[in-house]
Amino acid sequence: MASSTSSYNPPCAACKFLRRKCSPGCVFAPYFPPEEPHKFANVHKIFGASNVSKLLHDLLPHQRGDAVSSLAYEAEARVRDPVHGCVGAISFLQKQVDRLQKELDAANADLIRFAAGGGGGGGVFQTPNTYTFPYNYHSPWNTSYNPHGGRDI
Amino acid sequence: MASSTSSYNPPCAACKFLRRKCSPGCVFAPYFPPEEPHKFANVHKIFGASNVSKLLHDLLPHQRGDAVSSLAYEAEARVRDPVHGCVGAISFLQKQVDRLQKELDAANADLIRFAAGGGGGGGVFQTPNTYTFPYNYHSPWNTSYNPHGGRDI
Repeated sequence: MASSTSSYNPPCAACKFLRRKCSPGCVFAPYFPPEEPHKFANVHKIFGASNVSKLLHDLLPHQRGDAVSSLAYEAEARVRDPVHGCVGAISFLQKQVDRLQKELDAANADLIRFAAGGGGGGGVFQTPNTYTFPYNYHSPWNTSYNPHGGRDI
Repeated sequence: MASSTSSYNPPCAACKFLRRKCSPGCVFAPYFPPEEPHKFANVHKIFGASNVSKLLHDLLPHQRGDAVSSLAYEAEARVRDPVHGCVGAISFLQKQVDRLQKELDAANADLIRFAAGGGGGGGVFQTPNTYTFPYNYHSPWNTSYNPHGGRDI
């Protein structure tokens, strides 16, 4: 076989999708390798290449990998569920947190009764049908989101 | 005061932002009222008006309100945290679910010991330093997201 000093660098998935030359300083190239074409296609469909490029340029280089990961996750979630996107997962997890907190409070209340010598509250694994202890979940943001009004999704 | 039969309907926040005429069939108008200009500004900045318009047109009318709510939530989260967006909340909630599940398993293990007459596991509220029971959280999507590698955010 003949050897060659020239090397071929395939364009990144973004430049290939956008049908443009992939320059050495391409902001997409480190995060959208050619072997993951769907990753960029989703991100482009949901956010738009221009918005993603602007967002990456506004970040420090060491933050861009995490930003692309979260954008790709959000984009895939929105493609799968155009109504709720990844906010559906937040709603799902918030309900799990609420349920687990209630069960934990009930179990701890039973343990207090056992420790005081009063026995369990009607069965070791029985949780109360009505929950009266205060429970507050504080979102990391002030913005609350509840598109389902308590309905299961 | 003179009465008038003509009425003035101000353009929706989207059309005002985009400086265009707000027609009676405007797809944005029901969801972006003029008194909430930031809602559209965020959504436009992150997703782009064209992408949001396409997404809304592809949905049934009764789905559009929920879609706009989730898009506005995602957009605000991305404006506040350009690196993680609302995926930061998913990571935060997943950690809460993991912690609560471990505490609940420990409390239930103590309750089993009490019920068997063996007493608590070294203190009513003591949770084990190491957790050995299997615990599996299944995301509603197959895609997993963990940009922090176990670090707190």
